[in-house]
Amino acid sequence: MVIQPSRDDKFSFGLWTVGWQAGDQFGSATRPPLDTVEAINALSDLGAYGVTFHDNDLFPFGATATERRNEIDRLKAALEATGLVVPMVTTNLFSHPVFKDGGFTSNDRSVRRFALRKVLENLDLGAELGAEIFVMWGGREGSEYDAAKDIRGALERYREAMNLLADYVTDRGYNLRFAIEPKPNEPRGDILLPTLGHALAFIETLERPELFGVNPETGHEQMAGLNFTHGIAQALYQGKLFHLDLNGQRSIKFDQDLVFGHGDLQNAFSLVDLLENGGPQGGPAYQGPRHFDYKPSRTEDINGVWDSAAANMRTYLLLKERAKAFRADPEVQAALTESRVAEVNVPTLNPGEGYKELIEDRSAYEEFDAGAYFDGKGFGFVRLQQLFIEHLLGARS
Amino acid sequence: MVIQPSRDDKFSFGLWTVGWQAGDQFGSATRPPLDTVEAINALSDLGAYGVTFHDNDLFPFGATATERRNEIDRLKAALEATGLVVPMVTTNLFSHPVFKDGGFTSNDRSVRRFALRKVLENLDLGAELGAEIFVMWGGREGSEYDAAKDIRGALERYREAMNLLADYVTDRGYNLRFAIEPKPNEPRGDILLPTLGHALAFIETLERPELFGVNPETGHEQMAGLNFTHGIAQALYQGKLFHLDLNGQRSIKFDQDLVFGHGDLQNAFSLVDLLENGGPQGGPAYQGPRHFDYKPSRTEDINGVWDSAAANMRTYLLLKERAKAFRADPEVQAALTESRVAEVNVPTLNPGEGYKELIEDRSAYEEFDAGAYFDGKGFGFVRLQQLFIEHLLGARS
Amino acid sequence: MVIQPSRDDKFSFGLWTVGWQAGDQFGSATRPPLDTVEAINALSDLGAYGVTFHDNDLFPFGATATERRNEIDRLKAALEATGLVVPMVTTNLFSHPVFKDGGFTSNDRSVRRFALRKVLENLDLGAELGAEIFVMWGGREGSEYDAAKDIRGALERYREAMNLLADYVTDRGYNLRFAIEPKPNEPRGDILLPTLGHALAFIETLERPELFGVNPETGHEQMAGLNFTHGIAQALYQGKLFHLDLNGQRSIKFDQDLVFGHGDLQNAFSLVDLLENGGPQGGPAYQGPRHFDYKPSRTEDINGVWDSAAANMRTYLLLKERAKAFRADPEVQAALTESRVAEVNVPTLNPGEGYKELIEDRSAYEEFDAGAYFDGKGFGFVRLQQLFIEHLLGARS
Amino acid sequence: MVIQPSRDDKFSFGLWTVGWQAGDQFGSATRPPLDTVEAINALSDLGAYGVTFHDNDLFPFGATATERRNEIDRLKAALEATGLVVPMVTTNLFSHPVFKDGGFTSNDRSVRRFALRKVLENLDLGAELGAEIFVMWGGREGSEYDAAKDIRGALERYREAMNLLADYVTDRGYNLRFAIEPKPNEPRGDILLPTLGHALAFIETLERPELFGVNPETGHEQMAGLNFTHGIAQALYQGKLFHLDLNGQRSIKFDQDLVFGHGDLQNAFSLVDLLENGGPQGGPAYQGPRHFDYKPSRTEDINGVWDSAAANMRTYLLLKERAKAFRADPEVQAALTESRVAEVNVPTLNPGEGYKELIEDRSAYEEFDAGAYFDGKGFGFVRLQQLFIEHLLGARS
Repeated sequence: MVIQPSRDDKFSFGLWTVGWQAGDQFGSATRPPLDTVEAINALSDLGAYGVTFHDNDLFPFGATATERRNEIDRLKAALEATGLVVPMVTTNLFSHPVFKDGGFTSNDRSVRRFALRKVLENLDLGAELGAEIFVMWGGREGSEYDAAKDIRGALERYREAMNLLADYVTDRGYNLRFAIEPKPNEPRGDILLPTLGHALAFIETLERPELFGVNPETGHEQMAGLNFTHGIAQALYQGKLFHLDLNGQRSIKFDQDLVFGHGDLQNAFSLVDLLENGGPQGGPAYQGPRHFDYKPSRTEDINGVWDSAAANMRTYLLLKERAKAFRADPEVQAALTESRVAEVNVPTLNPGEGYKELIEDRSAYEEFDAGAYFDGKGFGFVRLQQLFIEHLLGARS
Repeated sequence: MVIQPSRDDKFSFGLWTVGWQAGDQFGSATRPPLDTVEAINALSDLGAYGVTFHDNDLFPFGATATERRNEIDRLKAALEATGLVVPMVTTNLFSHPVFKDGGFTSNDRSVRRFALRKVLENLDLGAELGAEIFVMWGGREGSEYDAAKDIRGALERYREAMNLLADYVTDRGYNLRFAIEPKPNEPRGDILLPTLGHALAFIETLERPELFGVNPETGHEQMAGLNFTHGIAQALYQGKLFHLDLNGQRSIKFDQDLVFGHGDLQNAFSLVDLLENGGPQGGPAYQGPRHFDYKPSRTEDINGVWDSAAANMRTYLLLKERAKAFRADPEVQAALTESRVAEVNVPTLNPGEGYKELIEDRSAYEEFDAGAYFDGKGFGFVRLQQLFIEHLLGARS
Repeated sequence: MVIQPSRDDKFSFGLWTVGWQAGDQFGSATRPPLDTVEAINALSDLGAYGVTFHDNDLFPFGATATERRNEIDRLKAALEATGLVVPMVTTNLFSHPVFKDGGFTSNDRSVRRFALRKVLENLDLGAELGAEIFVMWGGREGSEYDAAKDIRGALERYREAMNLLADYVTDRGYNLRFAIEPKPNEPRGDILLPTLGHALAFIETLERPELFGVNPETGHEQMAGLNFTHGIAQALYQGKLFHLDLNGQRSIKFDQDLVFGHGDLQNAFSLVDLLENGGPQGGPAYQGPRHFDYKPSRTEDINGVWDSAAANMRTYLLLKERAKAFRADPEVQAALTESRVAEVNVPTLNPGEGYKELIEDRSAYEEFDAGAYFDGKGFGFVRLQQLFIEHLLGARS
Repeated sequence: MVIQPSRDDKFSFGLWTVGWQAGDQFGSATRPPLDTVEAINALSDLGAYGVTFHDNDLFPFGATATERRNEIDRLKAALEATGLVVPMVTTNLFSHPVFKDGGFTSNDRSVRRFALRKVLENLDLGAELGAEIFVMWGGREGSEYDAAKDIRGALERYREAMNLLADYVTDRGYNLRFAIEPKPNEPRGDILLPTLGHALAFIETLERPELFGVNPETGHEQMAGLNFTHGIAQALYQGKLFHLDLNGQRSIKFDQDLVFGHGDLQNAFSLVDLLENGGPQGGPAYQGPRHFDYKPSRTEDINGVWDSAAANMRTYLLLKERAKAFRADPEVQAALTESRVAEVNVPTLNPGEGYKELIEDRSAYEEFDAGAYFDGKGFGFVRLQQLFIEHLLGARS
C-alpha cells in the first residue's frame, strides 16, 4: 500500500520531538543537538505541514534579545523556504530550576510573576508566527506532598494567570486560543488538572472560557488508565478539542512518548476513526493539526529519528484507511445495527415529551418486560468488536 | 485515647455496606442478608447519624407497591425509633440484566426510558424520607469495546436524563440536589465520566448545573492513580462537593472498598484535614455527611461487619485529632512558612495590576534572579512532609 | 482470508468460560446455566480440540458420589461422541465460603486439610479423563491486610501441599504434571505467588520441582503491568511453560477476561510468534494446548457466547498468519540484522574464553570506542517496530 | 520521642542519593555536585553506618587510572576518619550511551564484553573496600519493542555474565555475594527480571546459585502493583534477601524514589516489623544494612538533602518502635489468636501423616462441616487490621 503524507493531512511535530537528545532520568544524551533549520527541512521532506515549539526549543533560557531574534529569523526563513507553518507554540515553564515548584502555581509569588512574563513574551512570538493555538502543559504545577500545596489556592492562581493571558490576547487582537494539556504525574508526584476532565471543568471557572480548550496527549490519559478515545470524545462533545498530541504508551507507567500506533492499537484506531469520520455526514470531527508529541527512542541515532517521524504519519494514515474500510463494510453496518449503536443518538424522550408524559406511558415501566434481558436481548458487542479488530488487522479487505 | 462517634460527627453508612453478603466475582456469599431494622439499630448504637440506600437495598427489583410500602414503613419506624436520618438516597441501575448496557445511556432506548422511570419513582421516595442528596453512580454507563458506544451520543443521553430529573425535582419542589459519582472502570471496561474532573466538566453542560455536584469515592479516584485529596479540593474549589464516599484502596487494581484508613493513609490524613480544617478560619470546609461506602471483607462474619463499621468512624476521628495537632504545632507553622504554603493564596498580581503594569515591572522579569534557584531557594517540602508523617504517626504529641 | 480452526490447532476452552452466567461483582446473571454436553458439542463444531474444567463446573460443591458420577459419565459420553479431549483439569478452591481465607494456605488448618482432600479426589478424576496437566490457581491464597497472614508460614504450607500432591501422582503413576497459575490480586487484595516469576521461584523449593511448571494467564501478567511475552519467554527459557491461558486485558485494572486479541494486540502478536515460531528451526516453541480462559461479556446472550468463542480462535490464527509473514519478509530480515537481534544468541565469551582471557583482550575494554555510541551506532529498533506493526496490521502483504 | 540513629542500626546510603543533582526527565539540575568526602562526613554525623556507590558516582566514566585512584583514596580516607563502612558496591551500566541497549544483554556483543570488563574491574574495588554485597540493577537490560529483543537469548547472556562473575569472585577468594535488583520498567519500556520473583527464579538457573540473591527496592515492587512486604517475605523464605533498598512510592507511576515512609505507610510498617521482629524468637529476620535508595526532591536545596537523609532513618526507627509495641500489646496478641495467624505455621499434616492417612481421616472431608463457614467462622481480620493501623498511628500507647 502506497502511503505518502501530504500537507493536507496536517501533520505537525514539536521541534523538541525529533530534537530530543535522548538524555533520560538514568542516562545522558545519545544524540547531539539538532539544528532547527535541519529539522524543518527534514520534516518538510517527510510530508509534515507544521512545526511547533517551546520558546526554549528555539533559543536558550536567558537568551538576549539579539540571540532570540536571530533564532526566530532563522526559523522564519526555514518556514518560508519550505512552506511549513507554525500552528501552535508553547512555553517552557518546567526545565529551569526557577520552576522547581511550578510556574503559575509556585508557592513563590515572584516565580509566578516571572512565569507570567515569560508566557506573555511568548504570546507575542506565537502571534508573530501566525500560530492559532497556545498550549499550556503545567508539568511542574503540582506537588509530591499533600501538605506542601494548598490546592484551592493553587487553582485560584492558575485561574488568575489564565484570565490575565486571555485579557492580553484579547486586547492585542491576537488570533490565539489556549489549550491546556493535562497529565496525571511525572515529573511531579501529582500534577494539577491531572486529566482532560479536570481541565475541562477548570475552564468553566475562567472569565473567558471560550478562549480555552484542551490539548489531550493520548499517552497522558493512558497514564491514568483512561480510554483516550472516550476522553477526546467528551472534549469534542463539549466543543473543547482545540488541539491534540498523538503518541504511544503501553499501560500505566512512566511517560513513554512512543510513536503513535506503537502503544494501544485499539484506542489508536478508534481515535483516528473518531477524528476522521466522527463528524457530520461522516466527515472529520476535528479539523486541527494532527500533532505528534513523542520521543525517538534513546537507542536510535539520527536515522532512527527520521524513521520514527515517518512512522507516526504512516501509521496514522494506515489507520485512516482501515477506519474508512470499517465504516464501508456492510457486515459492520449490520453489526452496528444489531448492537443498536446509532440508537443512542435517538432522544430518550419522544418529541415534546416531559416527565409527565413519560410517567403516563405504562409501556415504559409498568408493562415493560425487563425479564427479557435475561437469556436474551444480547447486544452483539463481541461480534462487532471482532469486526473492529479484523479491520484493524486488515483481515477483511 | 477515648474516641466515641456521636451524631454531630455526621457519619452515615450505605445499607449495602454492612448488608453486603460478600459474594464476589469468584465466590458466593459468606453472610446471610441483614435486616434493615437490625442494621439501623446497630449503626445507631455505634454512633452513626444516618443511613443511605439504593431502592433495591430496601425492596427487591420488581416489588409490588405493597411490598415496597411495607419496607419503607419498616425503615421509617426504625429511623424514628433511633433518630437516624436519611441524608442521601440512590437508585440501582446496575444489578439487573436489563441494565447490562447501562441505564441512562444504554444503546437500547426502551431501557433508557425504563431507567428514567425507576429513578423518578425513587426521587419521590428520597423526598418522602427527607434526603437532600440524590447520588447517581453510573457503573454500567460505559463500554468494553470502542466501536460499541457512540460516546458523544451517550453523553447527550446522559444530559437529557439529568435535565429531565432536574425539571422533576424543581417542579415538585423537592429539596434534592444530585451528586454524580465517578469511577474509571469496573464493572464496565471503561465507564463514562471516569473521574471527578470529567463529571464536573459534564455538569457545566446541563440546563440546571446548580442542582448538580459530585460524590467522589476516594477509592475510585485511586483506581485512576489520582490523589483524591487533590481532586476533592478541586470539587470544593468549584463549589461542587455535594457528598462524598470514604473508603480504602491500595494502589491501582479492582475496587477494594476497604475501611476508610485501611488504604492510603497519607491521602486519608490530608483529606480529613481538608474537610475539617480547610474552611474559613480553619473550620470545616465541608458540612455534609461523612459517608462510608465500603465492604466488610468476605473473610468476616457478622462480628467483623460491626467491627469494620466502627473502624471507619474511629479512624476518621483519630485522623481528625491528628490534623488538629498538626495545625497547632508551632514547628509545623514554621515549616509551612518556610515552604511558603500560604503564599499561594496571595494574588500574583498587585491590587489593580494588569498585564501592562506587570510588563512594566522590571523586577518581575528583566532583573529577576532566576539563577538563585540553583543551589538555593529550597522549598523545605521534605521537612514539612516529615512533620506531616510524624503527626500522622502520633509521634509528636 | 478463510480461517477455520481445526483439531490440530489444539484450541481448548474452560467449561467455565462459555458457561459463565455473567453475574459479576455489581450485577446478577444475564444468562442461564449452560449444559456441559451442549457446550462440548458447540465447541466441537467450532473447531476446538479440548475442554477443561474445575470440579465444580461439572458437579456442585457437596455433590453425592452418584451425582458426581452421573455428570462425569455424561461428560465422557460427550467427549467420545465428539472426539474432544480433556487436556487439563483444575479444582475450585475459591468459590465456597469455606475457602474465604484460601485453601492450601488458609489460617484455618482444618480448611487446609479439606482443600487437600478436595484436590486429591480431583486428581483421580483428572487421571481418569486422561488429562496431563493439573492447574492450580490460588485465587484465595493471600490477604487484604499485612498483619493477617504470615507469608513465610503460608508459603511453607503451600509447599507442603505441593509436595503431598506430587507424592500422590507419583505413587499412583498418574501422567499428570502441575501448573501453577499466578495472579497479583482479585479477589484477594494481594495474592501469593503474584506473577509467573514468583511461581517459578517457588517451584525450586519443592521436593519434586520437575513435576511443576506454570500456567501464565496473559491478562493476569498485565494486571501487574508486565509484558506477558517477556514473562512467558522466561518460563520457556526455564523449561516451565506447562500450559497457558490466553485472553484479553486492557491496562491495569480488574480482571477483564476479554477475548484473546481484544486486549493488547502487540503483546498478543509477539506471543503467538513466540509460541509458533520461537522453537528450533522456527517451529513451535510450545506444543501444548492453546487454552482460552476468558469471559463472554455480560452484555451478550448465547449468540455472543459462541461468537466470542469463535473470535478467540480466529484471532489466534490470524496472528499466526501475520507472524509467518513477518518472519518471511526480507525487509524484516534485513531490519532484524540491522538491529542485531540474533546477535544476542552469540555467546559473549569466545569459545574457551574465561575471565582471564577476557581481561587480557584490550580490544574489549581499554581500546574499545565507547564514544562511538553517541551520535552513532543506532539500533534501528523503531524501524523494526514499524515493520512489526505493519505486519500486525496486514499492511505489507 | 527521642530518636537518634546509631551505627548499630546499620543505616546506609548510596552516594548517588544525597548526591543527586536533581536533574530529571523534564528539567535540569537544581543542585551542584556533592563532594564524596562532604557526603560521608554529613552522613556520619547523622548516624549512618555505611555508604554505597556505583563506580561512576566516585569517578567519571573513562577516568584514568590515576584519577580513579585519587578518588578511591579520598574515599578511603573519609571512611577511616568517620568509621563508616562500604557494605555494598555496584556498577553503572546504564548512564553512558554505550549501554543504550543494556550491558550484559545488549544486542551488541562488543558492548556486552565491555560491560563485563567494567564490572570485573569494579569487583576488585568492592573487594578492596571490604564490601560483602555487589548489587546489579539491570536498568537498561530490556526493550521497548517486542521484536527487538530475543528474551531467551538475552536471559542466556545474562546467565553467562553471572556465571563469569561468580567464577571470578570465587577464584579470587573475594568475600562478595551478588544481589540482583529487579524493576519492571523505566528507563526501558520493559526490563528483564521485572520483579523479585523473576529474579529469584532466574538465580536457580545459575551455576553458583548460592552466590546470588536479590536486592528488592520497595518502590520498584510497587511499580508493579505488588505488596513489597509479601515479596520480601518470599525472598526471606527462599534465603535470598541479601540486601534491600528502602524508599517511598505512591501508587503505580514513574519511579518516585521518595524518602522511606513517605510512600505506602502500611507496607512500610509491616516490612519493618518483618525485618526487625520476623526472625527466630521475634528477633531480626534480616541482619544486613538498612539501605536507603531515594532521591531528595528536586524542590530542595542542600538543607532539604540532609533533612531527607535524616527523615529516612527517623521514620524507620519510629516504625520499629511501633512494631515492637504492636507485638507487645495483649489485645493484638488476642486478635492474632482469634485470626489464627500463627496457625498457618502448624503443618497441615499430622506428624508422620501422608496422603493415605489423610484420605482415611473422614473428619477432614466427609464429615467436615464446610457449611459452618457461611454465617460464621469469621477470621476477625478487620479487627486485627484496625489494631495494626492504630499502632501505626501511635494511637494505643
